[in-house]
Amino acid sequence: MILALSVIMLLFEAGVSSSSSGLENQIFQYIDLHQNEFIQTLKEWVAVESDSIQPERRQNVTQMVELTADRLRAMGATVELVKLCSHKPDVQSLLLPPLILAELGKDPQKPTVCFYGHVDVQPAKKEDGWKTDPYNLTEIDGNLYGRGATDNKGPVLAWINAVESFRALKLDTPVNHKFIIEGMEEAGSLGLEEIIKENQRFFSDVDYIVISDNLWLSNRKPALTYGTRGNICFSVEVQCGERDLHSGSFGGIIHEPMTDLIALLDSLVDTSGRILIPGVYDDVASLTEEEKKLYEAIEFDLEEYKNNTGVKKFLYDTKEEILSHLWRYPSLSIHGIEGAFHEPGIKTAIPAKVIGKFSIRQVPHMDISIVKRQVIKYLEDVFSKRNSPNKLKVSVPISAMPWVADINDPLYTAARTAIKTVFGQDPEMIRDGATIPIAQMLQNITRKSVMMLPIGAADDGEHSQKEKISRYNYIQGTKLFATLFLEIAKLHGQLQEASNTTTAN
Amino acid sequence: MILALSVIMLLFEAGVSSSSSGLENQIFQYIDLHQNEFIQTLKEWVAVESDSIQPERRQNVTQMVELTADRLRAMGATVELVKLCSHKPDVQSLLLPPLILAELGKDPQKPTVCFYGHVDVQPAKKEDGWKTDPYNLTEIDGNLYGRGATDNKGPVLAWINAVESFRALKLDTPVNHKFIIEGMEEAGSLGLEEIIKENQRFFSDVDYIVISDNLWLSNRKPALTYGTRGNICFSVEVQCGERDLHSGSFGGIIHEPMTDLIALLDSLVDTSGRILIPGVYDDVASLTEEEKKLYEAIEFDLEEYKNNTGVKKFLYDTKEEILSHLWRYPSLSIHGIEGAFHEPGIKTAIPAKVIGKFSIRQVPHMDISIVKRQVIKYLEDVFSKRNSPNKLKVSVPISAMPWVADINDPLYTAARTAIKTVFGQDPEMIRDGATIPIAQMLQNITRKSVMMLPIGAADDGEHSQKEKISRYNYIQGTKLFATLFLEIAKLHGQLQEASNTTTAN
Repeated sequence: MILALSVIMLLFEAGVSSSSSGLENQIFQYIDLHQNEFIQTLKEWVAVESDSIQPERRQNVTQMVELTADRLRAMGATVELVKLCSHKPDVQSLLLPPLILAELGKDPQKPTVCFYGHVDVQPAKKEDGWKTDPYNLTEIDGNLYGRGATDNKGPVLAWINAVESFRALKLDTPVNHKFIIEGMEEAGSLGLEEIIKENQRFFSDVDYIVISDNLWLSNRKPALTYGTRGNICFSVEVQCGERDLHSGSFGGIIHEPMTDLIALLDSLVDTSGRILIPGVYDDVASLTEEEKKLYEAIEFDLEEYKNNTGVKKFLYDTKEEILSHLWRYPSLSIHGIEGAFHEPGIKTAIPAKVIGKFSIRQVPHMDISIVKRQVIKYLEDVFSKRNSPNKLKVSVPISAMPWVADINDPLYTAARTAIKTVFGQDPEMIRDGATIPIAQMLQNITRKSVMMLPIGAADDGEHSQKEKISRYNYIQGTKLFATLFLEIAKLHGQLQEASNTTTAN
Repeated sequence: MILALSVIMLLFEAGVSSSSSGLENQIFQYIDLHQNEFIQTLKEWVAVESDSIQPERRQNVTQMVELTADRLRAMGATVELVKLCSHKPDVQSLLLPPLILAELGKDPQKPTVCFYGHVDVQPAKKEDGWKTDPYNLTEIDGNLYGRGATDNKGPVLAWINAVESFRALKLDTPVNHKFIIEGMEEAGSLGLEEIIKENQRFFSDVDYIVISDNLWLSNRKPALTYGTRGNICFSVEVQCGERDLHSGSFGGIIHEPMTDLIALLDSLVDTSGRILIPGVYDDVASLTEEEKKLYEAIEFDLEEYKNNTGVKKFLYDTKEEILSHLWRYPSLSIHGIEGAFHEPGIKTAIPAKVIGKFSIRQVPHMDISIVKRQVIKYLEDVFSKRNSPNKLKVSVPISAMPWVADINDPLYTAARTAIKTVFGQDPEMIRDGATIPIAQMLQNITRKSVMMLPIGAADDGEHSQKEKISRYNYIQGTKLFATLFLEIAKLHGQLQEASNTTTAN
């Protein structure tokens, strides 16, 4: 009953959209009518336990990648399965699933859109607290529950469904398609960067890159993501001797490395969350009037957010402060200490060597090497004031750049129009406070326009025991992607026209 | 060859001791002549892998306790094996070795001396880096290497050898003997306190208690231990929500529990090792002139100490400062954090709940409950100034009182004389910075004189991969105990005489 109502609702929505053209209506109708088939395919995909974290599931990931490749081939795409094993030789190299590089259409008159997605998932077990079988997609009240439903099998299939809809209707596809689909995203995208670098020719004729691997900011309002924060991870090592000492036999006569480290970590950030390292805010981009307006336009329910996160009080009270401190200002978090006692109970040792771990989420236009220098100098200064005979060593084991796109780029214009067409409202222009290296990686290596276009809602619970995508979001997302193809094609026509006019002059 | 030389050296030393009586000489000669038998027995004891830490070795501990009981019975002692299982009912209760309560002699005219020792050991494996088989006592250059050689099988056997020597020589034993020997010391003396409390009758006729389970301060100079520090272990818990959060998605907008905890821990102690909690030093006993002289008299080689410990620079430069800060002043050590990331590598989480662990080694006349109150109040004050919405909880999971004895107690006088007789020099009067609850426990429950009388040297490496006792220390230690019996008997005679004189008046 609910099912039938949803279908009617979707048909109704598709019908009333004021800005949709005849062609769009034809496609929307097709998508609505075939929604149960699309859901059936998603059910088949979710059924494959393509968990990339646990090595014993690795062959399911490979199976999932092959299933995806078959689906793409069935649409007529040329698929190359690139082996990852040669790029990251390790003990598990034989088990690494291949990466998909696929293409469909080579019309030089059409723009080429490359879609990035992944078909591996986070681990999930019924006994973790799932109300449904995580590998049996189950619809409850219009929501499709299952591992990978929103992260990222649903969006990948929505894109494929959109491409497929044109083919099924025997309509000329408005754009050429390329696909980069991986099976190791949840395990840190092993080998991905190397493959992108080695296959730059694959990207040479790509005009636009779309990633759909994040969520809207709210449960109901569509969003476009134009930035993510970067991250610099620091290790601060303080060493006294070679072996741990007994706190009874040595407490009171030695400079304990733990006391030094605690003081160093305590010097990093104040109670208001402000980073105390001199100069660290110097290169943070100043907030423009245009950007300010973006924040004002965002619908953000603070109470809903508190409930979703379980945090009762934030450092800030207003929407603008909260979002800007998550998205466009740096933050510093202390994660833990290696080498000290960490178990339940008591161990009265003085650890000989302790390593503090903290990270700075950095934002445009902070420079990783400058921040690194500032942090090291600061910690060395703080340490030298302690007159400790212990040894200090600060290092940066890992870092990733922030990413920000120009929201006035034609790709974003096309997506805004498509969102308005499908959802009847303008998207929220959002960023992500987390670091999603793929966007910056693709933008950096290919130098193409990159956009993150989520179709899942804020409450989709990616990685949780209640992961879902709603039927509404999955099907409207499919329409959104189809509309985006048309908008990009229009854009391309306009751009070509403009270019021809210029040439004619 | 080395063996023969050692024997001659020991005989020689016994012979020249100026203050030894004819009776003592007779006993010393017996001990010297039978030293290889004593070493053979120690070899048999060391061969039993009575490791009380690893449950799979538990039956060896029981075997070792029974071997000890047999040895005591062979001397004519009455032995009671007290079951521990009824006192600490847990899953491993059936495997707990019994505790020995034994007695030998019931002459009401004689003083009764109770000896405490243990026959369990720390784990040891050849592959841990032992140069010899840890369970095959091996003599190299006059040192007897093996697990338990000094901690504590050697000293327990030295005491038994001393008692045995009187019996073998058909000499009247100068004192009545009691023994409390356990097999779970290295595992935290499970159930010991309860048994002592329940067997107060056993202690009712005990006059003196001697523990020989620690080491001299130096490699060559004998020592008498009259105090140990206590310990109060604190847990400081700071909690935000129920689950860890992603530092990208929440960094910059929440009061991170880890930042709060780091600030709390950083407020405890300054760079000079001074505890910053107001009032904590108020009840520390002031240094008397008599005590000062004890420190001055101690031979302490700072360079040797640095080499032994691997610490290049201490907080203090003089012997007096170092020893007094180890023994008679409190210290605070931060041990670690539970709930935060502690592994190698990176995990960019904001932990929801973190628990800092630190401990204060406290000294006379600090009161555990006062210190606890001071620490909790201080941490709550520091925390309230941060205006954090997180929850703070401070608790004391474990604490043990310090112990200090009156060095002018007759027992100490007897031991000093015995040491002077056997080693030809006065003992160093030392304390231990660590917490050895048995001394305070026995003193507190029985209200008798308690003394710690070590026979192992500073470099005996208890718990290490080069644990040993030297032949010299083992055999002279046996003589020391035999002499102590005689001195205590003399003391008792004097005390009785004095008491009779008083009665006669």
